[in-house]
Amino acid sequence: VVDVSVLDANVAVMAARWPGRRLRPHVKAFKSTALARRLVDAGHRGLCAATPREVLGLAAAGLGEDLLLANEVLDPGRLAALATCGARVTVAVDSAETVDAAAAAGLAEVLVDVDVGCFRCGVPPAEAGRLAHRARRAGLEVRGVMGYEGHLMMAPTEDKAARVAEAMALLAAAHDEVGGSVVSGGGTGTWALNEGVTELQAGSYTLMDADYARLRLPFRQAVHLYATVVSRRAGRWAVADAGLKALGMDHGNPLVEGHPVLYCSDEHTTFLPADGEDLPAVGERVRLVPSHLDPTVAYHQQLVVAQGDQVVDRWDVDLRGW
Amino acid sequence: VVDVSVLDANVAVMAARWPGRRLRPHVKAFKSTALARRLVDAGHRGLCAATPREVLGLAAAGLGEDLLLANEVLDPGRLAALATCGARVTVAVDSAETVDAAAAAGLAEVLVDVDVGCFRCGVPPAEAGRLAHRARRAGLEVRGVMGYEGHLMMAPTEDKAARVAEAMALLAAAHDEVGGSVVSGGGTGTWALNEGVTELQAGSYTLMDADYARLRLPFRQAVHLYATVVSRRAGRWAVADAGLKALGMDHGNPLVEGHPVLYCSDEHTTFLPADGEDLPAVGERVRLVPSHLDPTVAYHQQLVVAQGDQVVDRWDVDLRGW
Repeated sequence: VVDVSVLDANVAVMAARWPGRRLRPHVKAFKSTALARRLVDAGHRGLCAATPREVLGLAAAGLGEDLLLANEVLDPGRLAALATCGARVTVAVDSAETVDAAAAAGLAEVLVDVDVGCFRCGVPPAEAGRLAHRARRAGLEVRGVMGYEGHLMMAPTEDKAARVAEAMALLAAAHDEVGGSVVSGGGTGTWALNEGVTELQAGSYTLMDADYARLRLPFRQAVHLYATVVSRRAGRWAVADAGLKALGMDHGNPLVEGHPVLYCSDEHTTFLPADGEDLPAVGERVRLVPSHLDPTVAYHQQLVVAQGDQVVDRWDVDLRGW
Repeated sequence: VVDVSVLDANVAVMAARWPGRRLRPHVKAFKSTALARRLVDAGHRGLCAATPREVLGLAAAGLGEDLLLANEVLDPGRLAALATCGARVTVAVDSAETVDAAAAAGLAEVLVDVDVGCFRCGVPPAEAGRLAHRARRAGLEVRGVMGYEGHLMMAPTEDKAARVAEAMALLAAAHDEVGGSVVSGGGTGTWALNEGVTELQAGSYTLMDADYARLRLPFRQAVHLYATVVSRRAGRWAVADAGLKALGMDHGNPLVEGHPVLYCSDEHTTFLPADGEDLPAVGERVRLVPSHLDPTVAYHQQLVVAQGDQVVDRWDVDLRGW
């Protein structure tokens, strides 16, 4: 359930710092074209995606003015679909193979993905210029660079700014060799610290989760999973009917309204009494805060949109799957 | 991708120990009516489910001869749908509230769910008889008891049999008070040890996962997630294009063909060189073994069915969602 007032407040806070095209909202966090449209309507007309399916869904929804697939793809069929979907599509490349695959599929534009320390994709900074040259020789327009400092989203506060600056210095060095107007990177966890990008790739700030909440950002929790207590052992534990098939678990257990969580199983979350408080009764609703937004939303068919106590809309999670 | 020969071998091994109605396959593990039909065709005509949606899907697929919803449900609308779906549906009850909800919805049959130590649902054994009495007074047929020793599936070998026997002694004591012909419980992890049930609720044995593999059961890995290497830092790490939105993560990282896994992110798994071996090249396929089957399958639209190197079928994961 999305509290649309909180969502809108989060969008406004981000837009004040990263207005219009300075923000490239990342749809992977929420996988919904309806929510993406709200961000486009707020002025963020270029969008970021993690899978070909997300890009194709955005294009089909008429949101294809400027779509970045911030990921490497080799599958010729999927790349060809991106090249012919009617949207402006830019893909990330970090190797001769990905450059050649993009060119062969008829894609027009790429960003050179630069490794800024995340142990994932990206060309070493020193090789970025050479890869850009290869791309241009293959007929591709190189719009610039991207580099995701994902390893720093949750970094300790004391040296976080310095570490983000170091990562962005690597990206800037690569950009000097690559050229182009775009330097894309960052995320919700570095939104206030990243000074190196021309556009910020953030998505989680819209709905938030318990992990990002620990950073004490000015974004508030806009999505909750409502569950029903289906069993209770008075004074000892209670069981809500939402478990690890409704919650991304890589960041641990959800929060349950101040109750210690004992464990999650497939369709249940068992939780304990909070200090001095009773457990909710069988049949009562409890609100869970997911520990990780992205894989949680990906389990669900719909986001139910609420304004106060009223359900005002339902947004399909139409970009999930592959 | 399901290797159907391995699946069939697993089904045969289980059926030799738990033939016909002695096994009540649990569909929560694979959430597919096509796979459920294969088990019904193997003689296991009663099925077990964890959600109303799973039950309704099985009923709609014509597999409703005897469906057990091994879970507590309070929602009147969902219970009414179960009562009118045309299948024989038995639901678990563990409280006055769940008994009353089942009766009010027009359901006919229940099992008394007994707490055998799992810290989840189930009435304390000493209260099972009283709850059965209440159910009968409400007009419900009480078919017997169920009790899931989920906390023992992965218990250490040395005292596992004794602990399972203790849990089943609790269930037997409750059964003495409740009556009825059904004693339902158990799972893949206790398939060879559980001597206390009239029917075993197992599902993971069909496809298996890396967690159950540690138990050295005679069931083999029948499902793999195929991913493509989309990025590589030669000699250091490689990145496959399947991550924590394609894998249940509550049991940890997947296995990647003997390679140490560094971490999973949303759409990627970063892995390291195995001792003395090269990393696969960009574009190569790798096979991942999920650490936990159930929440992994729940992320996917389809199971691709293979016989050797040939794709012979595609089974929709049509029971997922709520």
